[in-house]
Amino acid sequence: MQVDVIASVNEARAIDLTHRTVIVIDVLRATSTIVTALSHGASGVIPVETVSQAKQTVQTGDVLGGERYSKKITGFDTGNSPFEYMVNDYNGKRIVLTTSNGTRAIQKAMKADHVLAGAMINAAACANAAYKLRKDIALLCAGTQDTFAFEDGLCAGLILAELYRCGENVQEIVTNDYGSMMYSAYRFHENNMVQALMSSSGGKRLSKLGYAKDVDYCAQVNVNPLVPILENNIMKPFNL
Amino acid sequence: MQVDVIASVNEARAIDLTHRTVIVIDVLRATSTIVTALSHGASGVIPVETVSQAKQTVQTGDVLGGERYSKKITGFDTGNSPFEYMVNDYNGKRIVLTTSNGTRAIQKAMKADHVLAGAMINAAACANAAYKLRKDIALLCAGTQDTFAFEDGLCAGLILAELYRCGENVQEIVTNDYGSMMYSAYRFHENNMVQALMSSSGGKRLSKLGYAKDVDYCAQVNVNPLVPILENNIMKPFNL
Repeated sequence: MQVDVIASVNEARAIDLTHRTVIVIDVLRATSTIVTALSHGASGVIPVETVSQAKQTVQTGDVLGGERYSKKITGFDTGNSPFEYMVNDYNGKRIVLTTSNGTRAIQKAMKADHVLAGAMINAAACANAAYKLRKDIALLCAGTQDTFAFEDGLCAGLILAELYRCGENVQEIVTNDYGSMMYSAYRFHENNMVQALMSSSGGKRLSKLGYAKDVDYCAQVNVNPLVPILENNIMKPFNL
Repeated sequence: MQVDVIASVNEARAIDLTHRTVIVIDVLRATSTIVTALSHGASGVIPVETVSQAKQTVQTGDVLGGERYSKKITGFDTGNSPFEYMVNDYNGKRIVLTTSNGTRAIQKAMKADHVLAGAMINAAACANAAYKLRKDIALLCAGTQDTFAFEDGLCAGLILAELYRCGENVQEIVTNDYGSMMYSAYRFHENNMVQALMSSSGGKRLSKLGYAKDVDYCAQVNVNPLVPILENNIMKPFNL
């Protein structure tokens, strides 16, 4: 099984995505938030690229969420902090979500056979689900404003480590050079993920904006078994 | 001092190179070979992008060297193995060199204030020279056919580690997220660089072609104090 890491959305070519399972990774914070929202009862998350698309898509009863420059968008119901989705109010509701990078990456991934949302919090479950789908895999790092983000690379390395555990032997999972790099970096930081995320550009930026507890939350490894999968443009909990 | 890693030539924008010292890294094998040729007495190495440019550039008394698909080019004097340059025959001679990736990266880097050639074998010397030039630095990974190469990333991480040692305090050297990633991966492999290089796509390819000893040689860390610097399109030994 080939498992390639794509370091940023700009580097994703159609040939790297088609006929594959793509795991989109935006640790700070889109994919962590999608996992959290669905595991707290939201019926689905609709990722859209722009603010105007979000406003066009939202229907009565839906929740309108998202951020620009890490802050809630004016007129929206809620932002992009996972803590904002740990509420009962959104139980059974659809979330229409637009974020700076994560939702764009999900849109780009739509060429794939299956699209999953991966984060530190659901890495093992996500690796297990992707492995069972029996397709080659692309780990698509969403990044920040078209550049590579450290925390997404670490998460790609973590998901690779979990895929190695799924494999029947060490030769079964084959990765590309970005994959080897992310895996090695993850192994260097595996016992201190909070500090690693706090040292990243994204972690520092969120901390300055008062979201340090979001970084702490998103740095937790394998604490959530929920795997979001895209079905008809809506992220829903995947039932294997 | 800002020290940014650029993961492949395709990602290098002019703005990332101008007013900087650029260290071009092509561990397997262009920059390792340039260091070796100069430290064995060649008077200079002229990096050119294409075979026809090489043929146009070469003058009587010069050596014509290079590779395509890792093999010597038909009609050329020599290939791109560092061992081919450990001879007395090239003493005082200019080498006109064309390789698949490394020489293209050097051409691209020419927008910079200074261009150095970095490899595992001269990493500490190269970091020291770049630090003393007092400009911000870009570590440009040459990669393989427009994609990131693991061994170049590890070498970027090693050079970053050496730059951290040059810095007067831990805050002086600031890197981007690719830099954090390459540094972490280097630290994971620092005690077993030969094995790391042998596990890379480039290392495997060279081994298959009978160049395993080249990989062993290029994996040696800080064994050569020579730093090539580009002066009027010729790589020459840098005298600080």
